[in-house]
Amino acid sequence: MQAAVMRNATLTTDEVPDPVPGPGQLLVRTLACGICGSDLHTLRHGDQFVEMSEGGSEGLGPGIPAPKIMDLGQDVVMGHEFSAEVLEIGDNVGNCRPGDIVVSVPIVLDAQGIHPIGYSNDYPGGYAERMILSDLFALKVPEGVDPRHAALTEPMAVGLHAVNLSGIAPGDAAVVLGCGPVGLAVIAALRLLGVETIVATDFSPTRRGLATVMGAHEVTDPRTEPAIDVWRRVDGRRPLVVFEAVGVPGMIDDAMRSAPRGTQILVVGVCMETDHIRPMRGVVKELRIQFAFGYDPLEFKATLDRIADGELDVAPLITGSVPIAGVPQAFVDLEDPEAHAKILVEPTASSS
Amino acid sequence: MQAAVMRNATLTTDEVPDPVPGPGQLLVRTLACGICGSDLHTLRHGDQFVEMSEGGSEGLGPGIPAPKIMDLGQDVVMGHEFSAEVLEIGDNVGNCRPGDIVVSVPIVLDAQGIHPIGYSNDYPGGYAERMILSDLFALKVPEGVDPRHAALTEPMAVGLHAVNLSGIAPGDAAVVLGCGPVGLAVIAALRLLGVETIVATDFSPTRRGLATVMGAHEVTDPRTEPAIDVWRRVDGRRPLVVFEAVGVPGMIDDAMRSAPRGTQILVVGVCMETDHIRPMRGVVKELRIQFAFGYDPLEFKATLDRIADGELDVAPLITGSVPIAGVPQAFVDLEDPEAHAKILVEPTASSS
Repeated sequence: MQAAVMRNATLTTDEVPDPVPGPGQLLVRTLACGICGSDLHTLRHGDQFVEMSEGGSEGLGPGIPAPKIMDLGQDVVMGHEFSAEVLEIGDNVGNCRPGDIVVSVPIVLDAQGIHPIGYSNDYPGGYAERMILSDLFALKVPEGVDPRHAALTEPMAVGLHAVNLSGIAPGDAAVVLGCGPVGLAVIAALRLLGVETIVATDFSPTRRGLATVMGAHEVTDPRTEPAIDVWRRVDGRRPLVVFEAVGVPGMIDDAMRSAPRGTQILVVGVCMETDHIRPMRGVVKELRIQFAFGYDPLEFKATLDRIADGELDVAPLITGSVPIAGVPQAFVDLEDPEAHAKILVEPTASSS
Repeated sequence: MQAAVMRNATLTTDEVPDPVPGPGQLLVRTLACGICGSDLHTLRHGDQFVEMSEGGSEGLGPGIPAPKIMDLGQDVVMGHEFSAEVLEIGDNVGNCRPGDIVVSVPIVLDAQGIHPIGYSNDYPGGYAERMILSDLFALKVPEGVDPRHAALTEPMAVGLHAVNLSGIAPGDAAVVLGCGPVGLAVIAALRLLGVETIVATDFSPTRRGLATVMGAHEVTDPRTEPAIDVWRRVDGRRPLVVFEAVGVPGMIDDAMRSAPRGTQILVVGVCMETDHIRPMRGVVKELRIQFAFGYDPLEFKATLDRIADGELDVAPLITGSVPIAGVPQAFVDLEDPEAHAKILVEPTASSS
């Protein structure tokens, strides 16, 4: 089958072996798969990703095996934000049937352990025509829901999880630093929770526009007026959570400098580089830095339900669509925040 | 009166003006005053302290004036961990009377605002024979309680506050990095809360010995076995809070590297330098970094009560006593963790 393959830190369109479903597994046809910023970073700095995965897999808990970590010396087919149609089922499958449209947390199980779909040498991700999923994790997409929208369950669940982990209440205020897909997912989750003061900031006018569409009450260019200053102007009294969704060095320290006493800084931006902070800034203001990662299965399901019932409209986030052959260029195009938010790979759509 | 004065970044014994109590204020005779690590740091890096105080005073809340920040170009008499005897009372004093033995949060009010005792040009701290306190904040030390022990209310309250802020439960586990006075105060508060697994670490055998006396269940030299490894060996299953009580660069990142998933790192060590972290370490393990500072008045009172009723025995922490003339040398002596934990300044004791 055709796939966009990460090989020697470059993306190549190539033929890869057709996957075969084992017991408890599904063979699916990829319908749509979002390109994630983490994939862009992994293509450039795969070694950092692997190093940090090794750090994170330690300590998941007694008896829980660590996810298998990819070997960058071998092919990897990325893509972990997908919807798909079930083509075949393996033995001992009781949940899904051929023809079902599904999404899944990007994890697949087999006798060897846990494999992260999209960062695995053994299981291709959604930048391929077909994938293997675990029947256990597959969630059926209700009839009538656009599979392109369902593919955004994964990135939107990241926003819901960050908001849940923060413990923010509707009466609190939120500042969102960065309006890429992660920041926009956070804004959407905040708005659905009923948070009444959401201030979002980004250098890009296009992304500030999307922030408003997703539910931000105030948007600002940080070069004109920093987000914390906007919060002081429009509110300045409610308990504040700052969501750091940029993920470049210096953002956390800058948030620590400007945040008022007692602020929680929820870090959901993925900064793989070494960063610097002034701990004393945190001490004198009793700040809290909470790091967030992923989501749990219930948050994933809740996000699908919200997309399905129309409560969460993800259509504005989809700014492009490419076939597999277009993936390498899409990675380049996504570097321009004015042009794109989320590009979907649609391996089997009629060519666009 | 006699005082140890910080002047041009050195400590000098000198005569300073006798303070006069205003309305709502008390003139007190210093009985005992602990030397705090923050004072050692301030003597060396006063500019950092002032810069960070400026950052911290911002955002205390609408209507609350910021504490006045000291000018290092003028004299400062440090000392904020004290007990004292009331000598005279100003107008409108209804709480204390001459002869009372008191402690107080190190804050004094006047018409000009809020002044931090020990870091003020206007009010001398406990390295002087006499001080001014606010009647409002003075807490009477019960009869029969050694005023030298009562002087440790302030540093021990720092430990109680850090433990409270962490939200640690008796069934959780704690690792305490650093067994200086702050770490020892944390250990004591953890033990009083009933935490059943307290692992403490310090390079110094003397301080490890004190950690055991204050309630640590396990102590370790980090060069022999890191504290997290000890925790894994003796427990490894309970939710973990790591208390960072060293306050030098690299400690937070090291805790982030070794901590298991979901750990809270409670930073109570005062690191004024710029520090480095790897945010991705926090992300993949969903760590929380909570910074702690000071205590509230109820925690201060609760600490005095525990010292008074004997529940909290601070006597082992007191490793020396000096008159005012001995303060400069005591600052030097405190650099050796083998020799000292807490040195008390006793301005009016019979010379030792």
